Amino acid sequence: MSIINKAAAIGGGVIGAGWVARLLLNGIDVSIFDPDPEASRKVGEVMKGARRAYKQMLPGGLPKEGKLTFAKTIAEAVADADFIQESVPERLDLKHRVLVEIDAHAPANAIVGSSTSGIKPTDMQVAMKKHPERLVVGHPFNPVYLLPLVEIVGGEQTFPEAIEVAKELYASIGMKPVVVRKEIEAFVGDRLLEAAWREALWLVKDGICTVEELDDIMRYSFGLRWAQMGMFQVYRVAGGEAGMRHFMAQFGPCLKWPWTKLMDVPEFNDELVDLIATQSDEQAHGLSIRELERIRDDNLVAIMEALSRQNKGKGWGAGALHRDYTKQLAKLAAKPADKADNKAKTAKPAKKDAKPAKAEKPAKTDKAKKSKKKG
Amino acid sequence: MSIINKAAAIGGGVIGAGWVARLLLNGIDVSIFDPDPEASRKVGEVMKGARRAYKQMLPGGLPKEGKLTFAKTIAEAVADADFIQESVPERLDLKHRVLVEIDAHAPANAIVGSSTSGIKPTDMQVAMKKHPERLVVGHPFNPVYLLPLVEIVGGEQTFPEAIEVAKELYASIGMKPVVVRKEIEAFVGDRLLEAAWREALWLVKDGICTVEELDDIMRYSFGLRWAQMGMFQVYRVAGGEAGMRHFMAQFGPCLKWPWTKLMDVPEFNDELVDLIATQSDEQAHGLSIRELERIRDDNLVAIMEALSRQNKGKGWGAGALHRDYTKQLAKLAAKPADKADNKAKTAKPAKKDAKPAKAEKPAKTDKAKKSKKKG
Repeated sequence: MSIINKAAAIGGGVIGAGWVARLLLNGIDVSIFDPDPEASRKVGEVMKGARRAYKQMLPGGLPKEGKLTFAKTIAEAVADADFIQESVPERLDLKHRVLVEIDAHAPANAIVGSSTSGIKPTDMQVAMKKHPERLVVGHPFNPVYLLPLVEIVGGEQTFPEAIEVAKELYASIGMKPVVVRKEIEAFVGDRLLEAAWREALWLVKDGICTVEELDDIMRYSFGLRWAQMGMFQVYRVAGGEAGMRHFMAQFGPCLKWPWTKLMDVPEFNDELVDLIATQSDEQAHGLSIRELERIRDDNLVAIMEALSRQNKGKGWGAGALHRDYTKQLAKLAAKPADKADNKAKTAKPAKKDAKPAKAEKPAKTDKAKKSKKKG
Repeated sequence: MSIINKAAAIGGGVIGAGWVARLLLNGIDVSIFDPDPEASRKVGEVMKGARRAYKQMLPGGLPKEGKLTFAKTIAEAVADADFIQESVPERLDLKHRVLVEIDAHAPANAIVGSSTSGIKPTDMQVAMKKHPERLVVGHPFNPVYLLPLVEIVGGEQTFPEAIEVAKELYASIGMKPVVVRKEIEAFVGDRLLEAAWREALWLVKDGICTVEELDDIMRYSFGLRWAQMGMFQVYRVAGGEAGMRHFMAQFGPCLKWPWTKLMDVPEFNDELVDLIATQSDEQAHGLSIRELERIRDDNLVAIMEALSRQNKGKGWGAGALHRDYTKQLAKLAAKPADKADNKAKTAKPAKKDAKPAKAEKPAKTDKAKKSKKKG
């Protein structure tokens, strides 16, 4: 069961609405602020997709949904929230304006998470005059209601305790928190994505392949590998009996071969945008974005469920987490009365239900060491 | 049913043995040459793993395995083969020596595929004095017996007809051939992998994360996405109703932000190798390479089977292909007598059984345009 009693979402775009969906489907009340007059319709559509996906995960029925309220101001949205997630566009000035408001009106002990995919928390929390120590980056991946990863990054003023509470909060709604050890722009996930994206743009621009061919090359090969083991573990296995050292000895030198064009960035002009947009239209083969979205969600649920049955039934990776998450939701669906009890509790980490799934590895202490200054 | 009557494998390492396993499990006889005195044991171990995986795919039983022969020379191995795949180490001089032998002794119309992950076919085929026009790169991904992708690349002397026949040959053993439109080193898959690998080395070297944390970041987020849709389709959907043009407009400029360290290559010294090898040992949590390999294979089968039930039962991407592949193998298992009939046929593309799975998209003509000179 979640340890969040009342959440606030600032921003209701694809990411913000994804957070709202995950929270509501965990039975948590959410107050959202988004000045877009279309916000209600857009959030409603994301909720529809999320409900559809969760129904597949929970054939026995969904938990009672949390209540969604549209607030007229940030102050109103955050007033009694213990967890606030901002997902406004990626402009530092805008983040500052929003964080000032959140900081001024949120309860002192509320955790503030930012969905930014690249801005350093230190650069954001300077705007917070009251409690900058409770800001963390909580960077999710689309679709937020299904993909479990959240990268947690603290800034110079972030308290280590805030990182710990944030980990528990995110884990309590079925997510996999990974704490990034040092603050850098774009963190870890988006650095890897940026690297692949740049190379992909070159390959398409140079006519080596179309976007559809590139996508096929990914999803019929290493995409299947990376859904269950990351790059290093995959190479460890590929190294065979001799293991990682052998693999590195073999493969390491390749890094000095002139095999990428990453030293440079392709000129980002209308021609390149046209080329990619046109090829992307062809690739969709007439399927609308909504149809593709449903197919994507179905596929993600099916992959996670498949992985949840692996490793002698204990589940593997995202599948082990998925198993625990659906169990937790099913329990919540079965006992709607518990929710009121939970409300009475404080927002302290509820050790029993909130800890991250153990996945395939033996239990161990968290070795993440944060070297943070207190503000 | 496969259109390959007799195959030869030159090199029996992880990749070579993976090819042998895929071919034998399709009921095709294989003659292998590998000077390593341990070759037989090593191939046997890969076969054991492959058999184990295929048994999960085919609960009704496997086709009668092809016969494996260890040849004493390349000449002996290729003598009566209609398909030859070389998987020797990635050194151009060695590739040349091996290709000269293959070319001198193979039947004139046999297709020669190279497993190289980076060397241009033009640079390899110069060594072939008799029939350089039948050399193609056929770059697979480990484990070859499970992952369907094969990148096909022709060199300056490669005949377009050879590309077409190679496509049919690989498709006939359950693979997804993608023809790379222009010859570049490392082709498409390994360019993307190289880009991600370099960035990953920086992130670990700089202490931003450990190899386990990086792997978790991949497999709980975009790894799940890329097992079913590639990068461009994923972003098309993320762009929402406005589609790809909107996404590009939003995301494009990010490419100019200083968000990767790809301009440079980390110094590849003992310290870096130690750091990664040690972290990789910790990440394995006591699981041996063999155990990890079995888990990987089980996961891959489970993911492909999960995807084979998607898209209103028609299967999606690698899952649609997997569905057709297992059907083909089950048919082969049910009718062992057919094999002899098939042997009598020539190696011409057997249109009915050999065409690639249609996956989720409407049937369409192959739009790949090769601009190759005839040798």
